[in-house]
This record gives sequence, C-alpha cells and structure tokens, in this order.
Amino acid sequence: MTTPAEFYEKHTELLDQAVRATAVRDYWSAFPESPSKSVYGETAAGEGERAFQALLGRPFPIEVPGAVGSVSTEHSPWGLELGVSYPKADPPALVAAARAATPAWRAVGPQGRAGVAAEIIKRINARSFELAHAVQHTTGQAFVMAFQAGGPHAQDRALEAVAYAFAATTRIPATTEWSKPQRGGDPLRLSKTSTVVGRGVSLVIGCTTFPTWNSYPALFASLVTGNPVIVKPHPGAVLPLAITVQICREVLAEAGQSPDLVTLAVEEPGDGIAATLATHPDVRIVDFTGSSDFGNWLEANARQAVVYTEKAGLNTVVVDSTDDYKGLLRNLSFSLSLYSGQMCTTPQNILVPAGGIDTDAGHRSVEEFGADLSAALGKLLGDPARAAGTLGAIVNDGVLARLTEAGNASGVVHPSAEVADEQHPGATIRTPVVVRLDAADEKTYTREWFGPVSFLITTESTEHSLRILVETVRAHGALTALVHSNRPEVLSAAREAALDAGVHLAENLTGGVFVNQTAAFSDLHGSGANPAATASLSDDHFVTGRFFTLQSRHHI
Amino acid sequence: MTTPAEFYEKHTELLDQAVRATAVRDYWSAFPESPSKSVYGETAAGEGERAFQALLGRPFPIEVPGAVGSVSTEHSPWGLELGVSYPKADPPALVAAARAATPAWRAVGPQGRAGVAAEIIKRINARSFELAHAVQHTTGQAFVMAFQAGGPHAQDRALEAVAYAFAATTRIPATTEWSKPQRGGDPLRLSKTSTVVGRGVSLVIGCTTFPTWNSYPALFASLVTGNPVIVKPHPGAVLPLAITVQICREVLAEAGQSPDLVTLAVEEPGDGIAATLATHPDVRIVDFTGSSDFGNWLEANARQAVVYTEKAGLNTVVVDSTDDYKGLLRNLSFSLSLYSGQMCTTPQNILVPAGGIDTDAGHRSVEEFGADLSAALGKLLGDPARAAGTLGAIVNDGVLARLTEAGNASGVVHPSAEVADEQHPGATIRTPVVVRLDAADEKTYTREWFGPVSFLITTESTEHSLRILVETVRAHGALTALVHSNRPEVLSAAREAALDAGVHLAENLTGGVFVNQTAAFSDLHGSGANPAATASLSDDHFVTGRFFTLQSRHHI
Repeated sequence: MTTPAEFYEKHTELLDQAVRATAVRDYWSAFPESPSKSVYGETAAGEGERAFQALLGRPFPIEVPGAVGSVSTEHSPWGLELGVSYPKADPPALVAAARAATPAWRAVGPQGRAGVAAEIIKRINARSFELAHAVQHTTGQAFVMAFQAGGPHAQDRALEAVAYAFAATTRIPATTEWSKPQRGGDPLRLSKTSTVVGRGVSLVIGCTTFPTWNSYPALFASLVTGNPVIVKPHPGAVLPLAITVQICREVLAEAGQSPDLVTLAVEEPGDGIAATLATHPDVRIVDFTGSSDFGNWLEANARQAVVYTEKAGLNTVVVDSTDDYKGLLRNLSFSLSLYSGQMCTTPQNILVPAGGIDTDAGHRSVEEFGADLSAALGKLLGDPARAAGTLGAIVNDGVLARLTEAGNASGVVHPSAEVADEQHPGATIRTPVVVRLDAADEKTYTREWFGPVSFLITTESTEHSLRILVETVRAHGALTALVHSNRPEVLSAAREAALDAGVHLAENLTGGVFVNQTAAFSDLHGSGANPAATASLSDDHFVTGRFFTLQSRHHI
Repeated sequence: MTTPAEFYEKHTELLDQAVRATAVRDYWSAFPESPSKSVYGETAAGEGERAFQALLGRPFPIEVPGAVGSVSTEHSPWGLELGVSYPKADPPALVAAARAATPAWRAVGPQGRAGVAAEIIKRINARSFELAHAVQHTTGQAFVMAFQAGGPHAQDRALEAVAYAFAATTRIPATTEWSKPQRGGDPLRLSKTSTVVGRGVSLVIGCTTFPTWNSYPALFASLVTGNPVIVKPHPGAVLPLAITVQICREVLAEAGQSPDLVTLAVEEPGDGIAATLATHPDVRIVDFTGSSDFGNWLEANARQAVVYTEKAGLNTVVVDSTDDYKGLLRNLSFSLSLYSGQMCTTPQNILVPAGGIDTDAGHRSVEEFGADLSAALGKLLGDPARAAGTLGAIVNDGVLARLTEAGNASGVVHPSAEVADEQHPGATIRTPVVVRLDAADEKTYTREWFGPVSFLITTESTEHSLRILVETVRAHGALTALVHSNRPEVLSAAREAALDAGVHLAENLTGGVFVNQTAAFSDLHGSGANPAATASLSDDHFVTGRFFTLQSRHHI
C-alpha cells in the first residue's frame, strides 16, 4: 500500500509545475506527444500492441459492483474484429457503491486526492500505446492521432483539470487563526477549520470520437474535488475508458481507498442508463460530451445536479484577405480533413464575401477560392496511404448519411471520394465534401453537419460575414472560429465579433497550428458563452461547482 | 472625469490587501465597525442623520431609464413616517438600458472595473451614517446594528466580493506567448489574448431584513466580472439600496461609463417584477435572498440564468455538555434575541438529550436548562431601553403572526413579551418565545419560523441530536449550526455531522462571538451544500459563473 500522502509526496513537483502552468499559460506539457522509441522506449510500441491484442475477443477484466451479465457493443471503423465484452451495469448498485466509498475519500483531503490522481495519470501514460490502439479501433482515428489525442494530449488535459481542482480546493487554508482586536480588552480569538466536501456522485458520459480526451477533465476534476465518479462510455467507444477505469481502481485500491470511487457503466445501446443515472437523486454532477439533443435534455432534466455539457455547434471561418494564400489553403484543407472532420472543432461554415478576396497571389473570386480549396484538398489527400493517415475512418453510419446528403446537393465544390487503404481493407474512408451556399441558405448551414461536410457561403461583405458569425454562433453555438485577413480593422472587428458571439478566435493560421486543436495549459476548449458548451476545459468555473467548503470554528 | 484606470491606481493597495485577505483569512477589515467620532469624525453622525432626514417625504433623487410614475412602499418598523417615493420601473426598459451599457464596460477590463467598484464602496462607507438610518427605518434593526451590519460589515462583504471577482478575472493572464518546440525546426509561436466577458444582465433581488449586507456581494461580484446590474429591492426596504445605486451611478458616470450599468427597479408590492425580470431572456444572472418559496421558484424557472439563492433553513444547536454554563446561556440568549431572531442565521432548533447535560454548574435536566435559558433571556432583556437596542423592532406582520402562533402552543418555556421603548412609541418590539418540543414533533420544528421563535427539543441522546441535525438540515437546509460539548468525541462527531449535513459549525461559543455572525474575509456565509443556499459569500464559486474567458490567438 502507498498512502495518498505518499503519492502526493511522489508527485509534488509535477503538481506544482502543473499548477504554475495553469497560471503562466505559455507552452507546457507533461506528457510527450511523440510515439517514438527515443521517448517511450524501444519496446513500448510492441508491448502496447500486444497488450491491446490480448484484450480482444474476451471479457474485459474489471470489477463492476452489482453488474449482471455482460455486453459487447463495439465495432472498429477500421474493420478489426474486437469482441471485447464488459459487465453490464446496474445503475442503482453503481450509485450505492459510489456513495459508500465517499466518506473515506473526503477524509483524504486535497493533497492526497491530487497525489492519487497524478499517480493514475502517470500509469495511464505508461499504457499510451495500448490506449492508442483502443482509441484507434473504437473512434476510427488514425494511429498517430489516436496516440496523441487519445494519449498524451488527453493526459495533459487530465493533469490540467487536476491542477485546477487542486488549486481551487487549497485556496482557502485548511486551518487559520482569527484574532479580532477589542477596544480595552483581549482580542476575540478563534481557530477555524475549512474542509472540502464533494458535491456528490459524479457521472461522466463519454463520446464516441474522443472517449479519453473529452472525459478525462471531468473525471479528474470530480475525483480531486472529493467525488466518486461513474464513467459511462459511449457504446461505440468503451475500451479506452474501460482501461482508464481499470487503472483508476488499481491505484485507488493501492492507496487504501475503495476502488468503487471510479466505476464503469456499460449498457446495451438503447438501455438509456445515461438518462437513468443523470436523474438519480444522488447523482449531483453530470458531465456530457455529445449531441445537442441529449445535452439539452440533460440540462433541462438533471435538475438535482450541476450539468457540464459540450454539444454541437457551427464552427465558422471568415475569409477576408491574406498575405499567405498557399498557407491558408494548406492549413484550412488540413483542418477540414483531419479525422474526416469528426472533431467538434472542425470548421463547417466558411464565409467569403461576394466580391472575392485579396491575396498575395492576386484577387480571387468566390469561385476561384472554391476551386483552389478543392485543389488543396486534392493535393493533401491524393496519396491513399497518406490520406488514410490524415482522414482516419468514418466512425458511424450517421456521419456517412450526412456526407451522402450533402454530396447530393447542387453546388458541390469538392466532392467526397472513397479512399482505399491497403492496410485496412474493411475501413470506411472518405474525403471531405465542400458545398457552395448563399448567405440566404441558412436553413442548411445553421444545422450542424458533424463529419467531413463544409459549406462555402457567399456573403455580401466581410462585415456581413462577421454579422452572420455573431448571429449563428449566438443562436446555435460554436467551439471554434477562424478569421483570415491582412487588414487590422477587420481583425479588430473580428475580435469584437468573437467576443459578442462568445467564441474563441484564431487569426490567420497558415502554418503548423490548426483551428481544430487546442493545447492544454494554454488554450481554453469551449467557453460557456455560447450554446455549444456550458464550460471551458479547464478553468476555475469548471471545478468550483464540484465541491463545497465547510468551516468549523471555536475559541482558542 | 476620473478614468477606471485612475480609480484602479488610487485603490491598488486596498485591492491588493483585500485579495491577500481572502487567501490568508485571518482577521482583516477595511471599514471600521464602530460608529464613533474618533473613527468617522466629529460631524459624521450629525451630517448623516441630516442627510437621511432630507430624503424623507419626497421623491428620491435618482434617474431610472424608462420609469413611469412613482411608488412609495416603505413603513418604518420604528414608527417613523418615511414617505420616500421612487420612479416605478419598466422591466424591458431596464434590461435594454443595461445591455446598451455593457460593451464599454467589457472594454474597461478587470483592473478598471475593480477600481471603479472600490471607489463606489469607499463612497458608500463615507455615507455609512445616512445608510444606517435608512437601514434602521426599513428593517427595524436597532441603530448600532443597522450601522454595523448595514454599513461597514456590508462594505467589507462588498470588498470581499470585489476581491474574489478581481482575482478570478485576472488569474488567466490577458496576454501570453506560447512557443512549442518542433523537432528539427523553429518552434511554433503564438501570441494569445484572453478577454473577460460578463455572462449578461445581472438581477439582484434584495431582502427586507438585510438590504445591503445580503445584496452587496452579488452586486459587486457581477459588476466587477463585467455585467450590468439591475437592483430590485424588497418593497419594504428600498431606501438603503436606492442610496447605494445612486452612488454607483455617480461613480460610473464620473468614470466615463453609462450610469445604467447599475439601475434601481422599484415596484408596487404584488407587481411581480422580480419574476418578470428573472425570466427575461437577456437576464443571465439572478441573485436572491428571501423565502424558500420564491427562491425555489427562481431556481426552477429562471432557466436562462445562473441563479444564486439564499433561502430559509433550520439553524440548529446541539447541547451536550459545557465547561462554561453561564457563558453558554449568555451567548445563546443573545443569539436568540439579536434583531428579534430576524436573522437568517438565528438558531431555531435547540436539541438537548432527555438525560440532561453535564455542566460546570452541575447536571441540568432539560426542564432546568429551559428555565435557565428563560432566566438568561429575562436578564438580558430586563431593561426596556437596553432590550430595544438588542431586539430592534419586528419587521412585519408575518413575523408577528408566527410569534403569536408559537406563543399559543403548549410547552412555552419562555413567553414573548412586549417591550415599550420610550424613544420609539410607535415601534413593535417583542422578546423571543421558546417552546419545548419532543423529537417526534418534527412537523413543527422542520418548518422555518423566521423571527424570535425557537424550540427546545428533547432527544434520546446527543447521538440522536446529531442524527436529527444531519437529517433535518440535509432535507430543509440551514445556514448555521452550533454544538456545545466538552467531550472531544462528541465534538469530533459533531464536525462529521456538520460535514454530512453540509453546514458550517460553531463550537462552544461562550464569549463575544455569536453563531449568527460571520466575518468577511474569514467566515463563509452559506455553503451551497444544503438547501438553504446555493452558494457561499464569498468564494470562487460565487464569482466564476458570472463571466467567461474568451481567447484569440495568432502567429507571431
């Protein structure tokens, strides 16, 4: 056994660095993103792959309190047969086990909880290759992306949430002395104690595209603030979170805590246990990533809980002008293609003024810009093997259906094509479709078309584009916005528009940074200021609703 | 004109001290609580009284956008004719004016907003005597209490909220540089900007007993985080908040901002403009102090807003044993009497084991304890003039009705008596009633009897008392809990019980500190962990829901 205090001692420096990084916000990362041998060791890749292979075709080794029977629901978008089964969850038993585990966890205090969390994340990092395969074969991400986004980047986001939770739960000192001067007498003196108490059972509902990256901040923020966590993966992407929960339980048990502080809730698709758990009177925190429909339902119905959602939106690009047209096209075509646009941050609506745009390669009409963007996509995705590494595979039939629907519209600027990947003959791989619309076609472009579907929308002017940005994002939400302009007054107006819309803005991205990507410890993901999300990953607001501070006082 | 930046420069030291005090949490106060000449000057008291007198019997000098007609709704519980009238508010006009004022306030930034807020609070402090009279003659508080709780203590709570808001909105740096190393190439470099954006129009709904103390934290937290604020006083206690809003508007105008960033919303009783405003789509923050009925209604119906409520509860005392029986009786009888129990923090349920309690004055049965408490009340309130200074006046007929109802019950241990105050012949002054109940009489004691009504409840044992504490507070809420015991194992169990119940605990108060009182910069008021309140005054959680942080980034 290693006590939570010992884990804290072991990871004090890491935690201190992480807390400092949340304040400084220059570049900082605890977990290297490169899956190279020089970083993770000669044997890590092979061991990770073997560990993943060993999980296939059998029951996943994990205890789930009260589970009855088993469930197997995953299909690899790359065509691999997975055949992993999991204990089928019984919601009331999970909640009861979580509650029973809570008092001892409360007594551990913030330092011990942060120490245990840091140990968990370190062990997750050590299994990054195994997790990368699990992420690849549930989400359809290409391997390198699955490694990075599902591994180190998710681990950095986890540690960031730990840092925010740790800082927020230690900002009020645990003990203080209060001495109030009294005229002509001894001061009034009190000794005061402050104790952090979790809000209650926390439910984390994972998504199918980024099972770890989108769940880790909530899981660790809730855990470090003193709450037990029930992790409810999407039926299509269970394995990455099953491995995660397995590691959590292993470390918690080693720390002398009940492993039921973190449990796995797996269901048959359609069982609806997310809704059952989210409205259980003892579930007091709900985190969700996924569709606006269910996110809005949770906000309206999980009234006994604080609810954090990340839902859909209309990520928007305003193109006005550029000094680096090639860079713009290269950068934007990659943003549209990465993981087949199956990121909540992929641009959907590209707004271009009817008069065209001024560029370092001369003036380009809307038609020309569409053709140039299509050519850039063709160049990026021309080689099937390389294309598969960028596009990944289509995660489910819903994405495919939207792609087909968009492709049948008039005004297709860049048609979607099938890509054959020799290594994965069973995979469904598609290039993005880009469809030209007019600003008046708002019925089409104010829907979210999750997947590789984007619209090139002609507006009256850049001013009109910015007005559409504000109106559509205020009404329907967005996680990202991008502006291209070499005119200072346009950039300034775009910044104001983004503040009005409540969306983070990227300007003139023409190099190796993409609007889809945010960096832990520096970029906020989501703002809470528009309907796409109710919180940011991560900031103080994301953690302060998860706990209470209770005081006691007595005379000295 | 003084710019916000200049106000910030003027008050930098005060703000820094205040932020430090929220972290250190030993004794700190910015505004002296003594209404003495040596502190506030020879002439301050007289000037303040004259200023108050000059307001009586006429329209209050304040501009309210869109107001139509006037309203006069206040009656002094001390019998003074007030006759102040106010412009009658038009809710849509207030919201429109608030929205129009917002963009310029957003552009001011956290430092400037904190500077303006500090200037406002300093000017409020300079009008403490005038405000004390206004508080006295709307709430029924005795003058010294009205001065302290309505003046410096409220000002300290205001400054505390400013400190939390200022710290929270500056924790993420406004500008940062991010530089990510690239293998075999130049680093990726971005310049990043973070801007604080308020959530939207903020509505502060005041109460009739502590119009300033309970409203200031919300008013200043919302203002400093970038939001316009509509202040909606209780119809019975408008004047203290009208003066406050007047000062806010004066300073905002001087700072070159729209005074409509803070407006006054006065209604005829029954107009229901609190509900109208709270459910307006553009009102995004609601703060409320008052009845559980309306608080719960707001939580259920103001769905477009974040809602902070402080409602009713069952403040509880567990008496087990004591080493200072006289001190216990003196302290508790004062807590029951102060402002006639019309504090949200006054103890209601006093739990005593059937076997009686061990004290330094010998063992006392429940009957003896009741008689001793009654005697202590009699001693404290025996002299009418001094009694009036402690009790204040009864604020409204609802309190009087509950007092009468409780007094008609069987088992009265200490009957309520009328007190005649020669200086205020028109005042309604009453001593508290204490009624003996059994633990089985939960139908009676699980209701909140706001006012000078307390119950001496016989339980099976102290363990049973603690169980009742946990069960009743979890179900019905409480703002305070107090335990008297000289047994360490009981104190330890009481601390755990208070954590389980989600209530702050005071232990063995026998001197000059009372369970009703909390100190700014040290004690949290409310916890959010039980139904009596959804937040604490003040902590990070109280401010972080009031704003968003929006980022923009571009290559360097």
